[in-house]
Amino acid sequence: MTTAEQTAHPHTLRAEHEQRLARVQDVLASRGQDALVVTDPANLYYLTGYNAWSFYMPQALLVPVRGEAHLVLRAMDAKGGHHTATLPPERIHGYPEHYVHRHDIHPWEWIARRGREVGALPTGPAVLALELDAHYFSPRAYLALGACLPQAQLVDSLELVNWLRVVKSDTEIALMRAAGEVTVRAMTVAVDSLRAGARQCDVVAQIQQAQAHGTEALGGDYPAIVPMLPTGETAGTPHLTWVEEPLRQGEATTVELAGVHRRYHVPLARTVSLGPPPARLAQTAEATGLGLEQALAAMRPGSTTADVHAAFTRTIARYGLSKESRIGYSIGIGYPPDWGERTVSLRAEDHTVLTPGMCFHVILGMWMDSWGYETSESVLITDGPPELLAPLDQGLVTHP
Amino acid sequence: MTTAEQTAHPHTLRAEHEQRLARVQDVLASRGQDALVVTDPANLYYLTGYNAWSFYMPQALLVPVRGEAHLVLRAMDAKGGHHTATLPPERIHGYPEHYVHRHDIHPWEWIARRGREVGALPTGPAVLALELDAHYFSPRAYLALGACLPQAQLVDSLELVNWLRVVKSDTEIALMRAAGEVTVRAMTVAVDSLRAGARQCDVVAQIQQAQAHGTEALGGDYPAIVPMLPTGETAGTPHLTWVEEPLRQGEATTVELAGVHRRYHVPLARTVSLGPPPARLAQTAEATGLGLEQALAAMRPGSTTADVHAAFTRTIARYGLSKESRIGYSIGIGYPPDWGERTVSLRAEDHTVLTPGMCFHVILGMWMDSWGYETSESVLITDGPPELLAPLDQGLVTHP
Repeated sequence: MTTAEQTAHPHTLRAEHEQRLARVQDVLASRGQDALVVTDPANLYYLTGYNAWSFYMPQALLVPVRGEAHLVLRAMDAKGGHHTATLPPERIHGYPEHYVHRHDIHPWEWIARRGREVGALPTGPAVLALELDAHYFSPRAYLALGACLPQAQLVDSLELVNWLRVVKSDTEIALMRAAGEVTVRAMTVAVDSLRAGARQCDVVAQIQQAQAHGTEALGGDYPAIVPMLPTGETAGTPHLTWVEEPLRQGEATTVELAGVHRRYHVPLARTVSLGPPPARLAQTAEATGLGLEQALAAMRPGSTTADVHAAFTRTIARYGLSKESRIGYSIGIGYPPDWGERTVSLRAEDHTVLTPGMCFHVILGMWMDSWGYETSESVLITDGPPELLAPLDQGLVTHP
Repeated sequence: MTTAEQTAHPHTLRAEHEQRLARVQDVLASRGQDALVVTDPANLYYLTGYNAWSFYMPQALLVPVRGEAHLVLRAMDAKGGHHTATLPPERIHGYPEHYVHRHDIHPWEWIARRGREVGALPTGPAVLALELDAHYFSPRAYLALGACLPQAQLVDSLELVNWLRVVKSDTEIALMRAAGEVTVRAMTVAVDSLRAGARQCDVVAQIQQAQAHGTEALGGDYPAIVPMLPTGETAGTPHLTWVEEPLRQGEATTVELAGVHRRYHVPLARTVSLGPPPARLAQTAEATGLGLEQALAAMRPGSTTADVHAAFTRTIARYGLSKESRIGYSIGIGYPPDWGERTVSLRAEDHTVLTPGMCFHVILGMWMDSWGYETSESVLITDGPPELLAPLDQGLVTHP
């Protein structure tokens, strides 16, 4: 039995979920808030284990400052809730089908009513924290909930649960290492598949096969973002998805992907040149590699995220390079459309102090006019140097 | 050159995008609204061709009732906008990186300001329509926009653009047929891969390879939803994703997937029994198949969606079966997390009149306690009988 299998035993997780919910309640109490409405699917998974592709419909975990949390899903998904969430069945509720996609009624009216009935949402004057910038919590949901709780003051949770996720438990570190094994395999397949004449879609076909397969011991899970494969001219921009055009000799492709195990993500990026790279690309790769070395060297407990950013930008500045966007972000559980935790960024304006158990994707995208270079590492902060979660050769890959 | 390649020529699409934008402006004028803010990525693609995995960050198309539409993206994505959107570069704007993931400022403040500067958003008293129930438009975005436009009355667009998408153009019908070719191939691979002893993740690996590959002539694109593979006991609920457990002889698996070409989706579901099916499963499959036949027979121009639903429920009622949830929905362009258009549902409360050019996923999920049966067809409404977009054998598949 692998570490990940051992630590993912439901009973272990139930206890951990209860501890996490208790921490949420502690924060609510310290803020003088009466309840939190959790809608981010990664936060639902973190707090209860609930895991299904049901987040395109309204769903929520209702956490009162005292008492028990309740999960409300679409009726057809409530049964799935019983399979994955560690909450007891009587705390999982399903709203009826006829609330779906209507202009006259909204599922959040049902959620608000049931929440009050079971004591998970306040009935009178209260302060209610909401995930106001989460994916999958729409303004219409927000307005419907507010209308049903007219005495409640609605405030932003400011990513309360996301911030609790930043430092990983031992269980989670084992899952991240397992995801890293999937990443190494998927990136190896990706680099091997990038050949002149191969259609972009066929390279992605190989990568996705590797991502789902995982390893013989560990199943792969779906990534929050599909493989990114900007190539040739489009390598100057990061988020275009593949087309059916073949790769051309003499061009470079950047590939960004994640290995995933049980929703834990370890992303990685590499750049592959088909044929000898132009001097500008080779030089940028070298400077970026030196910058990465310095950034990793700065990732020690007690350093700040701004220190890490400074170590990188100082190094590449010597080569006449600069980078405006952040050079990384906190990672862990991910659901589409993003595998970032939406908390810590590695940038000049962020002063988070690094602590063992934090995990980051250090991603160095150097996007130029009509070309680009990208490389990255996913790392775990330890007492010593950061641990590479998906160790693979660094630097520009050149195929003959 | 295939039909899809011919019709997808940028100049053809630019003209079609302009016509679509003009239709949006006509609707705004008829409603007395001054502008529409479009955030749904499928609507952005429909109106401009913009296509990238950038929807996890704020982005919008600003459409004034008169004058020119402007697209606002994160700075690093604006370059990608130039590659895919048919808007001229001067109407594509990028907000600076330091607006990302902050508690003190929000990208929507920048979007609102730029929108006013270029005349795409009102500066004084006005009625502004917003996609209040779209994915990827958060309450915080809504509140930030409202605060920047204090004289504007914010109203719900009520899926204005989604409703324009319901009837497909000839260009779109060609793309749907192309997607259907991918679907047939991917479902054939799925059915062949479902064997006792195969790990669920490895079956998905084969499916995803087929989805990205497409056909020799047509590249596959990423589906808005990953392959669903509820199996054995979990087949009683529709949206659980795969795990690494192997499939077991004597159990049934339902598989739901989509073939995708250039963001157009043709979904399909089938159920595979490993070994002779239990009587209840075989009987449910037969009754559902007869219900499907009747539903398809009812899908003629002039019929309503409620008629289609009634034809199905009347038929299965004869076998003692009933189904509470809708039996289908409008399909076309899709982005995660959903390939439905969020407009027409095939259900008793929906009275949309069927028109040639509409496309539906007729999906019959019969979820029972700890088992289930699922089958579907994706169809195009024509002047005659509906055209099956992914023609494959109907009914329960049994592997020995």
